[in-house]
Amino acid sequence: METISIIHAPEHVDERVRIGVWLSNKRSSGKIAFLQLRDGTAFFQGVLRKTDVTEEKFAEAKELRQESSLYVTGTIHEDARSKFGYEIEIDDFELVGESEDYPITPKEHGIDFLLDHRHLWLRSSRPHALMRIRNEVIRATYQFFNDNDFIKLDAPLLTGSAAEGTTELFETDYFGHDAYLSQTGQLYEEAGAMAFGRVFSFGPSFRAEKSKTRRHLTEFWMIEPEMAWMHQEESLELQEQYIAFLVQSVIDNCARELETLGRDVETLKKYTKLPYPRISYDDAITLLKENDFDVDWGVDFGSPEETFLANHFDQPVFVLNYPKAIKAFYMKRHPTRDDVVICADLLAPEGYGEIIGGSERDTDYDYLYKQIVESGQDPKEYDWYFDLRKYGSVPHSGFGLGLERFLTWITLQDHLRETIPFPRMLNRIYP
Amino acid sequence: METISIIHAPEHVDERVRIGVWLSNKRSSGKIAFLQLRDGTAFFQGVLRKTDVTEEKFAEAKELRQESSLYVTGTIHEDARSKFGYEIEIDDFELVGESEDYPITPKEHGIDFLLDHRHLWLRSSRPHALMRIRNEVIRATYQFFNDNDFIKLDAPLLTGSAAEGTTELFETDYFGHDAYLSQTGQLYEEAGAMAFGRVFSFGPSFRAEKSKTRRHLTEFWMIEPEMAWMHQEESLELQEQYIAFLVQSVIDNCARELETLGRDVETLKKYTKLPYPRISYDDAITLLKENDFDVDWGVDFGSPEETFLANHFDQPVFVLNYPKAIKAFYMKRHPTRDDVVICADLLAPEGYGEIIGGSERDTDYDYLYKQIVESGQDPKEYDWYFDLRKYGSVPHSGFGLGLERFLTWITLQDHLRETIPFPRMLNRIYP
Repeated sequence: METISIIHAPEHVDERVRIGVWLSNKRSSGKIAFLQLRDGTAFFQGVLRKTDVTEEKFAEAKELRQESSLYVTGTIHEDARSKFGYEIEIDDFELVGESEDYPITPKEHGIDFLLDHRHLWLRSSRPHALMRIRNEVIRATYQFFNDNDFIKLDAPLLTGSAAEGTTELFETDYFGHDAYLSQTGQLYEEAGAMAFGRVFSFGPSFRAEKSKTRRHLTEFWMIEPEMAWMHQEESLELQEQYIAFLVQSVIDNCARELETLGRDVETLKKYTKLPYPRISYDDAITLLKENDFDVDWGVDFGSPEETFLANHFDQPVFVLNYPKAIKAFYMKRHPTRDDVVICADLLAPEGYGEIIGGSERDTDYDYLYKQIVESGQDPKEYDWYFDLRKYGSVPHSGFGLGLERFLTWITLQDHLRETIPFPRMLNRIYP
Repeated sequence: METISIIHAPEHVDERVRIGVWLSNKRSSGKIAFLQLRDGTAFFQGVLRKTDVTEEKFAEAKELRQESSLYVTGTIHEDARSKFGYEIEIDDFELVGESEDYPITPKEHGIDFLLDHRHLWLRSSRPHALMRIRNEVIRATYQFFNDNDFIKLDAPLLTGSAAEGTTELFETDYFGHDAYLSQTGQLYEEAGAMAFGRVFSFGPSFRAEKSKTRRHLTEFWMIEPEMAWMHQEESLELQEQYIAFLVQSVIDNCARELETLGRDVETLKKYTKLPYPRISYDDAITLLKENDFDVDWGVDFGSPEETFLANHFDQPVFVLNYPKAIKAFYMKRHPTRDDVVICADLLAPEGYGEIIGGSERDTDYDYLYKQIVESGQDPKEYDWYFDLRKYGSVPHSGFGLGLERFLTWITLQDHLRETIPFPRMLNRIYP
């Protein structure tokens, strides 16, 4: 008799198998017990009839508590009524681990209680579905970039300089010197693009921001691709292809998880249609003004403006060429205007706002040096970065996607914390 | 005319194409210039004949300096004499970025100089080959674990407790509280295994160790799989299948890179033959004594012992069931002996030593609680971890592979620092 996972039940119809499971819920009458089972790969139902087992065994089943672990033995059947489509008719089971007073019951719990029990809460159906979708997005990210001739180049997490100031950086002692946890690997990825053509980093980023919004984590994961010999227009095409590929992968491989979360697949399908609309920052300002927003040219958009813009197009939308004054020093100068740079943010619809920020990078040593000096920073901190403009500078572009921001949108969650296994926030570093 | 990457040259034989490249080296005579070109995807040769271009263009070509960037236009030809197998016959080029006095010349440089210029050194053929192999191992890791029903579950990097002591931990202020950079995600992966069956983490780990050996980095990447309902013997089979899969993937997809590094493929092929030998710690001690090692039962092995053992078998070898006193508190008790635990290290041959450490985990709440108390630690720090033994405890096993340790062996390097893009060591946090 084979030991299988629930996810492989469809390949074992009418076979007698053994599965290691936890009991997530149960109901029973005098003659039959319905055990809701999970093994981490999926959830399905076990049916235990009094006539199929000894009286002691049936009594034992009725006493099983939530999250007890057991080996169940039985026969797999199709079960068209259930979401999973299959069930197991149990003819024997063996209790492996007891579970007394499991804290997360089917009733409602407060968010703080649930987050305090995140190590257990992950077993519940919604966090379970969210983490499986997260895994699919990670998997699809590697597939997309590998298929497009990128290599993964890990940027360092510990850096010795705090060029842009230390207020939002976590600091540590590095054998007697100050060191900082990286907020972005971009500058390193630029070095990588000059060495490997196309690179991406995908790792944790840290932001010691004292903000307590639903859009912030202190530790989050970022994907940062950087492409040599690529101008912004081609980068935008790559970005939209990447987003559409992720959405399609989730549609194809996470149907059950989307259903668990109540996420409408037809809405998601819209987001696989390319190209996404593009609007200049200038036109976005005009459009906002026409719709009674109180915005002046030069400001960065807040959540209401981003929400309006993406909803207006009912699609993710690229906002192009923001004012130079509100964007990073390395962004490429506009060929005919002094006040904007060659960049774009991708705003997600349904109220989710920015999920990607990107730009073409300026290639000129003197310009970038001046930018740093004018910003009051120490050019010495950028010595190695300036080398990239001294030795064979080339046009190049890149962008950054926040994994949790993307996931929160795709799964229609209220808060980033739902989309990362063990969220770190202003008031949370446990468990 | 299409713009392509060098790696795709084989698909464009006899076609006229454009490629963005850097000049890595050149030699020329009065009539012909051989330009060694790279674009990050590969290295190949450009041939420029005086008869094919204007006199000015030919003169310009002879003046091009190392690491200048240029667009070259020409026709792809097969070139059986070269390692890459193809070359481009250039009929035009356009200088894009100058390069004056590029610091890394074809002559020998000291290691400190090269590490100070790591952002440029990555362009050289050996680091380039090493990072492409690193990328292949990362890619293959995701493929292997996804194909085996694992999901990637990211463990947090910032943790609020320093249960095992702070001496080797990087510390940071977390909004008024002490926090630490994680050395391992294992305890979190155990929580993950109870929720998802099979999980793995793959992220940076940190060790503030004041050691300056070729086997240490302060920031390195670890793969940590954890499997519910799995005993140690099955875990060992999974481990050796994983290692063999990685080695085979590198053989299949990195032939050119292995050649650049001078790594003999026939030697690597041996490591795809399974199973790997297993030897108990007891028998390893006996074997070492027979071969004049001065070791007593109870000690941990050092580099000479590990080197001897793996070379003795001429294969990676699992050493099973080490003394309990030198292993972690969570390892499973041996069923009949008090002095050893159910664990294994995988030692790589050719002098590389431990690449994997793993064990079955004990499932008993009372035992683990006692272990913590006896070690002088505060059981409160492990509250959430103990929950995993309170609510449906199940047999489970896991292991950790150090990415850079594996790569150093597979590519036959002397030092871990060669195998990570921007190494962090006792005296190095730049660039």
